[in-house]
Amino acid sequence: MIPRYSRPEMVSIWTPETRFRIWFEIEAHATTALAKLGVVPQEAADKVWAEGAKAVFDIDRIDEIERETKHDVIAFLTHLAEIVGPEARFVHQGMTSSDVLDTCLNVQLARAADILLADIDALLAAIRRRAFEFKMTPTIGRSHGIHAEPVTFGLKMAQAYAEFSRNRERLVAARKEIATCAISGAVGTFANIEPQVEEYVAEQMNLSVEPVSTQVIPRDRHAMFFATLGVIASSIERLAIEVRHLQRSEVLEAEEFFSEGQKGSSAMPHKRNPVLTENLTGLARMVRAFALPAMENVALWHERDISHSSVERMIGPDATITLDFALARLTGVIDKLLVYPENMQKNLDRLGGLVHSQRVLLALTQKGASREDSYRLVQRNAMPVWRGEGDFLTLLKNDPEVKKYLTDAEIEEKFDLGYHLKHVDTIFRRVFGEA
Amino acid sequence: MIPRYSRPEMVSIWTPETRFRIWFEIEAHATTALAKLGVVPQEAADKVWAEGAKAVFDIDRIDEIERETKHDVIAFLTHLAEIVGPEARFVHQGMTSSDVLDTCLNVQLARAADILLADIDALLAAIRRRAFEFKMTPTIGRSHGIHAEPVTFGLKMAQAYAEFSRNRERLVAARKEIATCAISGAVGTFANIEPQVEEYVAEQMNLSVEPVSTQVIPRDRHAMFFATLGVIASSIERLAIEVRHLQRSEVLEAEEFFSEGQKGSSAMPHKRNPVLTENLTGLARMVRAFALPAMENVALWHERDISHSSVERMIGPDATITLDFALARLTGVIDKLLVYPENMQKNLDRLGGLVHSQRVLLALTQKGASREDSYRLVQRNAMPVWRGEGDFLTLLKNDPEVKKYLTDAEIEEKFDLGYHLKHVDTIFRRVFGEA
Amino acid sequence: MIPRYSRPEMVSIWTPETRFRIWFEIEAHATTALAKLGVVPQEAADKVWAEGAKAVFDIDRIDEIERETKHDVIAFLTHLAEIVGPEARFVHQGMTSSDVLDTCLNVQLARAADILLADIDALLAAIRRRAFEFKMTPTIGRSHGIHAEPVTFGLKMAQAYAEFSRNRERLVAARKEIATCAISGAVGTFANIEPQVEEYVAEQMNLSVEPVSTQVIPRDRHAMFFATLGVIASSIERLAIEVRHLQRSEVLEAEEFFSEGQKGSSAMPHKRNPVLTENLTGLARMVRAFALPAMENVALWHERDISHSSVERMIGPDATITLDFALARLTGVIDKLLVYPENMQKNLDRLGGLVHSQRVLLALTQKGASREDSYRLVQRNAMPVWRGEGDFLTLLKNDPEVKKYLTDAEIEEKFDLGYHLKHVDTIFRRVFGEA
Amino acid sequence: MIPRYSRPEMVSIWTPETRFRIWFEIEAHATTALAKLGVVPQEAADKVWAEGAKAVFDIDRIDEIERETKHDVIAFLTHLAEIVGPEARFVHQGMTSSDVLDTCLNVQLARAADILLADIDALLAAIRRRAFEFKMTPTIGRSHGIHAEPVTFGLKMAQAYAEFSRNRERLVAARKEIATCAISGAVGTFANIEPQVEEYVAEQMNLSVEPVSTQVIPRDRHAMFFATLGVIASSIERLAIEVRHLQRSEVLEAEEFFSEGQKGSSAMPHKRNPVLTENLTGLARMVRAFALPAMENVALWHERDISHSSVERMIGPDATITLDFALARLTGVIDKLLVYPENMQKNLDRLGGLVHSQRVLLALTQKGASREDSYRLVQRNAMPVWRGEGDFLTLLKNDPEVKKYLTDAEIEEKFDLGYHLKHVDTIFRRVFGEA
Repeated sequence: MIPRYSRPEMVSIWTPETRFRIWFEIEAHATTALAKLGVVPQEAADKVWAEGAKAVFDIDRIDEIERETKHDVIAFLTHLAEIVGPEARFVHQGMTSSDVLDTCLNVQLARAADILLADIDALLAAIRRRAFEFKMTPTIGRSHGIHAEPVTFGLKMAQAYAEFSRNRERLVAARKEIATCAISGAVGTFANIEPQVEEYVAEQMNLSVEPVSTQVIPRDRHAMFFATLGVIASSIERLAIEVRHLQRSEVLEAEEFFSEGQKGSSAMPHKRNPVLTENLTGLARMVRAFALPAMENVALWHERDISHSSVERMIGPDATITLDFALARLTGVIDKLLVYPENMQKNLDRLGGLVHSQRVLLALTQKGASREDSYRLVQRNAMPVWRGEGDFLTLLKNDPEVKKYLTDAEIEEKFDLGYHLKHVDTIFRRVFGEA
Repeated sequence: MIPRYSRPEMVSIWTPETRFRIWFEIEAHATTALAKLGVVPQEAADKVWAEGAKAVFDIDRIDEIERETKHDVIAFLTHLAEIVGPEARFVHQGMTSSDVLDTCLNVQLARAADILLADIDALLAAIRRRAFEFKMTPTIGRSHGIHAEPVTFGLKMAQAYAEFSRNRERLVAARKEIATCAISGAVGTFANIEPQVEEYVAEQMNLSVEPVSTQVIPRDRHAMFFATLGVIASSIERLAIEVRHLQRSEVLEAEEFFSEGQKGSSAMPHKRNPVLTENLTGLARMVRAFALPAMENVALWHERDISHSSVERMIGPDATITLDFALARLTGVIDKLLVYPENMQKNLDRLGGLVHSQRVLLALTQKGASREDSYRLVQRNAMPVWRGEGDFLTLLKNDPEVKKYLTDAEIEEKFDLGYHLKHVDTIFRRVFGEA
Repeated sequence: MIPRYSRPEMVSIWTPETRFRIWFEIEAHATTALAKLGVVPQEAADKVWAEGAKAVFDIDRIDEIERETKHDVIAFLTHLAEIVGPEARFVHQGMTSSDVLDTCLNVQLARAADILLADIDALLAAIRRRAFEFKMTPTIGRSHGIHAEPVTFGLKMAQAYAEFSRNRERLVAARKEIATCAISGAVGTFANIEPQVEEYVAEQMNLSVEPVSTQVIPRDRHAMFFATLGVIASSIERLAIEVRHLQRSEVLEAEEFFSEGQKGSSAMPHKRNPVLTENLTGLARMVRAFALPAMENVALWHERDISHSSVERMIGPDATITLDFALARLTGVIDKLLVYPENMQKNLDRLGGLVHSQRVLLALTQKGASREDSYRLVQRNAMPVWRGEGDFLTLLKNDPEVKKYLTDAEIEEKFDLGYHLKHVDTIFRRVFGEA
Repeated sequence: MIPRYSRPEMVSIWTPETRFRIWFEIEAHATTALAKLGVVPQEAADKVWAEGAKAVFDIDRIDEIERETKHDVIAFLTHLAEIVGPEARFVHQGMTSSDVLDTCLNVQLARAADILLADIDALLAAIRRRAFEFKMTPTIGRSHGIHAEPVTFGLKMAQAYAEFSRNRERLVAARKEIATCAISGAVGTFANIEPQVEEYVAEQMNLSVEPVSTQVIPRDRHAMFFATLGVIASSIERLAIEVRHLQRSEVLEAEEFFSEGQKGSSAMPHKRNPVLTENLTGLARMVRAFALPAMENVALWHERDISHSSVERMIGPDATITLDFALARLTGVIDKLLVYPENMQKNLDRLGGLVHSQRVLLALTQKGASREDSYRLVQRNAMPVWRGEGDFLTLLKNDPEVKKYLTDAEIEEKFDLGYHLKHVDTIFRRVFGEA
């Protein structure tokens, strides 16, 4: 967890305070359920709730006990007994540490997912706003980094919107998968604790019941969760790289917002660097990398080993905190992005009309030229333009072979920018439900 | 693609023959749609279907043309023109190569997913059969590789069943995500082709329409697809490692089927090695590794670059073929697994009753001993047993402090195996819908 | 950075205090070099050293300035000016931020490597001690988890020793690669600063000169460094898994040291779990995962982009701190490992002599039986033993076909354990230089 | 293995023919060594060499036998016996399959490394030639994609040269590590085969002796090998991305060679796309991904399991063949790269002199302005230029505050391009040993 890449709300999910509070809730709900079943006295459950709800768990004290016992849940329970008194012996009856630990982790991940979903919603709102703002702003579409044909800046945003809408759905699915509760005892057989306890705790904590646990909740759920974060991070990288490209000195169609007082370079004061999106590119690499140990965690030995734990202590906070930060940063970048439509037009005009070559090609074939001939005719007029030796429209008009198929007016009509934008509304309706 | 790790049905999805056939279908459907729109003559579309449907595409000829043009789709279209005749000039009108390539890839991945889903179904059936076969066969549950408390072999299978059921759902979602069609032209603006063409082709080919493409279908879809395969592979690894552990000489609770004539070792003829599941462990590493370049593929430059292509030429076939093979191999392993209930019982008995320690612990607390005292009492009687110095039941009965809380009969009752199996039905109902 | 997986010495490399101290040293040495070249006054350099050497850099103040300037090096230089006074304007002349940042990172990584080398030395010493302690302690060698032929526990240790010796050499090479200094100005051309400054600083700080930098030190060096850490982590995993296997209930040939007061399980007090080595298994996954973003960092855009920075802020500390902790933990595990030679002997005897099957096979072929016949004869006597139906030696003596080739005495001679250990000395001499 | 990304020489290393030939050599050398030790008759060794050297191994026949025995080495030995006759029973005496398989794999990897080293040499030669060709060709240096200060195109090449020189050294080290031989029998104890056999085979096959093997050669060697390939691939990606950036429409400082007859796009005939370097970007992702399963392979169980094998069957060929192809492709790209110095000059001039801002900044501080004032003065004149509102030189000359420190002549002197190139010779000498 790097403070500069962290936001407090997500960080707070991973503090010891939150963890012990969730542990308490699991234990206390379980005690209530045990009381309902008549296994422990109702007064014990009441006492646990009464004392525990108001208690501030003393983290230093718990650490101290853990140093002796080398066992975190026992340390917590010991401390809880100090708070609750003798009734505490009814807590954790028939349970195993993992019942608490694994259910807690899933609560944390589900809460983290809620924040991330809100992050994506904010990002989607920003993208949508900019999409409609620049819906019909023409800009050159580029394949392979090479000018292709016109698009609009709004379409770029629409693509990003559709992509993050998919990410939202994926995260909803991953959240649902991870929000399970296991209170099934030592090896998941409910030998010492009735399944009703699990059902009760799950219901109280808004979780679903883990159908079969084996002391641990199976880690394929977590692998899927972190893999999903990795995919989202990769989409962040895509949009970040788009901005970085647009801000290149030679392109300059958009820029990250540049605040007063900000210095781009200690040496070159004129520089305005896309440092936020470069930063996002790196953060995406990290979140993606975390998917791998999460997948390696799946193959635990027999009913469980604890190799997953050190991994999760690291990637649980790191992946969610980093992704939360990255989504928020990206939202800021998009929200305040400086967009330069004039530069877009300048770049569009740069290639002397070559972006219209395909329309000419099509027109030739439609007038009866073979595909091969059409291609040859277009290419021989395009190449000089490419080398800066002339203007595509003029060259075409002067090509006697082209003249055989197309009149000047017909050629000119092929250079109309509006032609390319006629289906922007169609696409917007598909993506946003309106245009 | 390694022949020994390949099955023909999945391999056939990735042959040039299949690819060109799908390309043909996309082009021919698009030509039909164009004819419906009046853009090209209906007879042209008819001719394309008539000639193309019966043609065998000459792969060597296409390769030859590609060597000259260095462009695969142009090579195919040139060859198609050789087959169809002059009407071929109406094919591919307003389309771009990626319309064909990307839609084709998604068709291939969707078909691959269908095979993988059938594979999972077969695996689930095998697991289910063995689960019910050994539903009540007691075996020791192990955490950290150490004996914990009894479970049944059926429960192990139930866990695997639940895990692969989840994988099935994930794959269904991934398949749905990947089954999209884009026929949107050079940069996705439909400038030269009406959206109706895309809609028609999508409908004919059982795909959904890509809401916004940018020459390419966005690669977050593919990243999610391959990440999902990585998670499934990790579950394969888990079950494979379970079998490997069970087959260890000292454990020998189960064995991969060993056919007559098979030699385990060139040097040690008595050996029967879990080579299939070891092989699966390695294959899982590969499928998992393929998720990473798929995620790196997401961040294409602007409307597209082609860096994703070389990756997909490798992982498209390799990930699906390997996973198909692995699932089928695992199904065979489970289906024919030699299971040794007597050895399971032998291992259960090995620790002199220590597996019942928790029940004793609970009984002590329920009789009024503090949690700390109970723990101490159990541990001081467990340790000699662990060292092979005595039998847990006897030691407990002779411990004067234990006697204060529990009678001999009460202690003995804690050593009942059935106690641990009372909720097997509950779990089976959760997992299989019946018990 | 997870406190529980961190050791103070390595952590201290990554504190702001250390970082600013290294920055100061780089800047101050550079100022001295500039003074030698007559570019800045010698008194300025003297003042910088005099004031800076005794100063405690105020991290809160630097943070405060950075919040305004959004630039860390400018913030530091501003604070340095507050300490040094007007002479500070001669500091950083002709330099760029990356000269400071990149050289500092390499100093930190080189120091981290020094600690890791010391860690490996400690680990090697522990392994060596245990290797000689159990040099001739027979234990069963296992391939595929199945009993193969006898080895000694010392040989297992010798293998680990050889592996970590290789890791040591790799780390020495990686350290050498990473220990470079760049003071080359804005884009690495030395336009505003003479190469002699770089040479001087490099010499003073025990670094070598980066032959060609481009504002940044090229990241292939760092990729190699973190990849090397990933390989070392994988070796840790190997030894950790060996211990986990040896500690399995059914095997129990060794155990992690179990301190008084430690509780293995909140539910099952008799359990002694290999939690340290399980933990190491997880930590290895993390260190390995960090190699990937380090490799993705190599392809910076043009002379540099800053996408590497967020990655390095995370993996710089996390990979080195985690590996340091893991090496130290592994050293402790090996050093205090409880080794049970009697259990090793018990396991060796478990298979009724089958471990000698290869020797019998060889004897048969040497007596003239074909390889195929020999194999068949051995296998038909081995299989009943495998099923627990008899003793290999007795069965062989009673097999009339075997009798044709071998006398009883010859068969018995093949069951001598010492036969397998005759080259332990040879191997020890190869690995340790002595036996 | 994808034919289009493969070159025959590297492919031939991985054919069954080559593999069986290497197996034969290992077995035959071992038989010779056994004969020298008197363990087998010299005539047997002679016969093996005589028959085997001239034999063409029948791969179909070997496959047929393997289908029955399910063991590849036994299948090969059986076939060898068909060729050699009864003397074949002296082959493989005391050896285990892995002695053959692992030594063979290392021979293959060492040979692959030799090809890769030759590839790097060819690449280095191409880079060096272009470096000297464009040694003093000015071009803008870019950080963050933003114009910084002038460099030369030769310097870009020099950086690549230094980076691939490092990669060469890394590969030499990895090759040395991997070129080991193990002939140590069932679990590596030399119980049935004398160490002299291993030493003899190693010497004959130009390998070093594996100090301690455990049936298998330890996989940390292979992990290091494939990790090294991953780092080299990342350097390929860096140079490929540089070319892709230079070829962008707006930049166009260099282009991949474009052959006659090549078509860039089926739709847009004018397009010349950097498809080779985009392809290399994808291939780099693959080679990098292969490092991970190689690292996961390290932690084999006990003396060995065979999980590594399926991984190596895939990444052994795939990583080396892909990297060989990628290096050769990159060499072609660099060798034939179309370089446009005039466009470089045009881009250099684009920012109206802003690239000289740092020199002005330094001049101001040297004339006594504070660092903060200097920065402010430069920035306030730079910002209008950035917005296209004026020329940096003119603005500076007209700034009254600037005038206080600098004369017009002094300002003009700061706009000299040569100033930036004065140390190109220094850097070239460092990198190439000459300038």
